[in-house]
Amino acid sequence: MSDTNTYCVFCAIIRGQSPIAKVYEDNTFLAFMDKYPITSGHTLVLPKYHYGDLFQMTEDEVGNLYRVVHTIASAVYNATGAQGLNTGQNNGKAANQIVPHVHVHIIPRYEKDSRDGKWPSRKVSEYRELEEIANRIKKNL
Amino acid sequence: MSDTNTYCVFCAIIRGQSPIAKVYEDNTFLAFMDKYPITSGHTLVLPKYHYGDLFQMTEDEVGNLYRVVHTIASAVYNATGAQGLNTGQNNGKAANQIVPHVHVHIIPRYEKDSRDGKWPSRKVSEYRELEEIANRIKKNL
Repeated sequence: MSDTNTYCVFCAIIRGQSPIAKVYEDNTFLAFMDKYPITSGHTLVLPKYHYGDLFQMTEDEVGNLYRVVHTIASAVYNATGAQGLNTGQNNGKAANQIVPHVHVHIIPRYEKDSRDGKWPSRKVSEYRELEEIANRIKKNL
Repeated sequence: MSDTNTYCVFCAIIRGQSPIAKVYEDNTFLAFMDKYPITSGHTLVLPKYHYGDLFQMTEDEVGNLYRVVHTIASAVYNATGAQGLNTGQNNGKAANQIVPHVHVHIIPRYEKDSRDGKWPSRKVSEYRELEEIANRIKKNL
């Protein structure tokens, strides 16, 4: 565990070495549009420090992370006009964690966005679309 | 929005009118085994106050909720010997929120607990099984 990790794609983003559609940043946390959105408006919130999973964080750090999640989720909800919203966070490969750097998914949900009540499919959006929605969310912060 | 809601099944639990396999309780929060577990060890954490969704809570309240989630999730992870763990929270029918009282799902994950990488099916457990696992989690708190 270190401040940033050479081989972590989220740490590369945090170091400014990889482009993102940014929504929010402070000294401790960063929020940006997921490049592989499950729905339009899918946003990630993460600590800048390279924690692999929730269990590497203290109770206080997790509490502070979710204070930010609450703020961003409210802005995403208002900006998208969604009818629902999921927040979720995966720890470990067995839980479908893809990038081993703690991150919270904020996923706005729309009536009938899924078939048969199943999770909607992943679909890569155009980068311009991500920038556009990031700007709408920022206006709601 | 009121302190407890007459028609809410979680408020009935909070008033002690419905049996649960309890894991944790303080003045503000309650944690117990989900009666419809997605996996063995599936636990719910919720505020006692009847908030319908995350957007009815303040930033501080959400931060405090997730401080407790961190504590319970660590105990669930250690008690079950899971290889992964999801935390998730649904707002609104469009996001598959079943009970309209804020609650966080803590779902331990096991290698190969899902087919084709899909979310494992829901399966009702025996109540005795819920009590047994609740006791194991409590020992890890």
